[in-house]
Amino acid sequence: MSRIVRVAAAQMGPVSRNDAKPKTVARMVALMREAHSLKADLVVFPELALTAFFTKWYIADEAELEATYFETEMPSEVTRPLFETAAELGIGFHLGYAEIAHEGGRKRRYNTAIVVDRTGRIVHKYRKVHLPGHEDYRPDYPIQDLEKMYFEVGDKGFRAFRHEGGVFGVIICNDRRWPESYRVLGLQGAEMILCGYNTCVHNPMAPEHDHLANFHNHLPMQAGAYQNGTWVVGVAKAGVEDDWAMVGQSAIISPTGEIVAMCATDGDEIAFCRCDLDLTRLSKTAVFDFARHRRPEHYSLITSTAGTVAPPDPEPVPANENRPLTKPEF
Amino acid sequence: MSRIVRVAAAQMGPVSRNDAKPKTVARMVALMREAHSLKADLVVFPELALTAFFTKWYIADEAELEATYFETEMPSEVTRPLFETAAELGIGFHLGYAEIAHEGGRKRRYNTAIVVDRTGRIVHKYRKVHLPGHEDYRPDYPIQDLEKMYFEVGDKGFRAFRHEGGVFGVIICNDRRWPESYRVLGLQGAEMILCGYNTCVHNPMAPEHDHLANFHNHLPMQAGAYQNGTWVVGVAKAGVEDDWAMVGQSAIISPTGEIVAMCATDGDEIAFCRCDLDLTRLSKTAVFDFARHRRPEHYSLITSTAGTVAPPDPEPVPANENRPLTKPEF
Repeated sequence: MSRIVRVAAAQMGPVSRNDAKPKTVARMVALMREAHSLKADLVVFPELALTAFFTKWYIADEAELEATYFETEMPSEVTRPLFETAAELGIGFHLGYAEIAHEGGRKRRYNTAIVVDRTGRIVHKYRKVHLPGHEDYRPDYPIQDLEKMYFEVGDKGFRAFRHEGGVFGVIICNDRRWPESYRVLGLQGAEMILCGYNTCVHNPMAPEHDHLANFHNHLPMQAGAYQNGTWVVGVAKAGVEDDWAMVGQSAIISPTGEIVAMCATDGDEIAFCRCDLDLTRLSKTAVFDFARHRRPEHYSLITSTAGTVAPPDPEPVPANENRPLTKPEF
Repeated sequence: MSRIVRVAAAQMGPVSRNDAKPKTVARMVALMREAHSLKADLVVFPELALTAFFTKWYIADEAELEATYFETEMPSEVTRPLFETAAELGIGFHLGYAEIAHEGGRKRRYNTAIVVDRTGRIVHKYRKVHLPGHEDYRPDYPIQDLEKMYFEVGDKGFRAFRHEGGVFGVIICNDRRWPESYRVLGLQGAEMILCGYNTCVHNPMAPEHDHLANFHNHLPMQAGAYQNGTWVVGVAKAGVEDDWAMVGQSAIISPTGEIVAMCATDGDEIAFCRCDLDLTRLSKTAVFDFARHRRPEHYSLITSTAGTVAPPDPEPVPANENRPLTKPEF
């Protein structure tokens, strides 16, 4: 059985804070129709696709924040055209959005992504685990990075799921910088990982690295693909959004870590690839045959601590290996 | 206090199975003197530097195997010039070699690397954890990959250690393909990771990827450096060794993941860099501030299983999000 998934990485140009959501959704429907013209099976939209990347601003008014940028249901009235078009065309999609959920007796806000199948049904939901930036407003920064203020850490973990004849996973933006994100999915046999992102070129916490923003976008996605033998589809909201430049270069990355399709602009654009899920097999059965090669008994720090621990005291080296060979000896 | 370590990545060209060890050690001493002329503090030699990369052959005679390729003490008579020269010049070094140890009541063989300080004293020993390849002789392969036959899995884990005013770690060859190797050291604050390697371009288990051998050499080392905010020094035994081409491109990689020095030949050659350990700080306090951003509660699979587990059953999606949107609805 063929396991080819035709993937459209649907990069989006900037979405201004002044853009009404229906206008943005109309752009997405147009991208979906273009993807369909390429006979795509799956359209991958960016993180927080429906609005401006609002976490770069401090918005003190909670009511304004939630009414402007968050969704309380999915599909909602404004997002319904995406679901309808998917069902009409028989095409699946990935959508990132800011979610308000009433769970566990209180209101929660998450940075969320869903996967919708060809019938318009939500088949997977993921909530971002690695929230970047800081939790406090920093007036001395020209832009903020306030995801830790606006969102809770995702509660669903990295769960792979069966989809389109293969095993899929979803991560979001900053998750892609962390090898653990790919590995937990890889350990469930992930063959394709979808990753929407919004990345300002300027990082107020490390501006010395701004010039490496594109490199730091691709490097960990390519490594994550290679080290887990999986396709990775990274999709940006790109361009200059309300005066701030964002990383583009949306890319489809093969299980070898090679970039096999990439957007050439920073606007609405599709990067397309016919992705054979069977291309994952060689990696998974040779260099990255986990069961044969991994050694979890030596990985315990990865799950036993979040932060850094001090290196151990010097190991006693056996006496016959421990003689100082100072000049006088020779 | 300055924390600059002047590092010489001392790539070695091929070592034939016919080369006597003293000849090879003399080449290494020459590299050490060249490194000293660059005012290097530390010379990094490759994995299994003293001999041909013998794991590509099936050697049935255990006595021949051990007598020809393994060391039973360190320093030994034949390796003593390395230690003497280090002490004479006041330069430290990293050396990979095949080790026979009598421990736990029996003889053990490891793929080992040591770090020697400027007085000629061994200050760290590491034994390779991720042994690649297969444990059985495969006559249909043109070359073997028999590390799993010739060595035991290292028993020391990834232990960072204080050295040259910073925190160091050692990994060996195939370890560099596994993000866990870097992460366990990164979680101990590693600022410089030393990695010797011998990598045949031809992988008999995945020859379809041979053309990517150089890419797959650098990609995970660059990602490991970036994702842990650490220097990585990758040093090859390179060139055509007994008819088999090996990956070169020995590289010094900065904490941003950039290759900042690289060998241009596949012979004996030094790639040099003045490595400022303080360049690790920006990464470790911003994007990769582990304590603030890592979420071990979502990483449990990484340590609970070696091999792949099946993805979970489909998650029940709340009813209000689970309506199929088939055409008849619209």
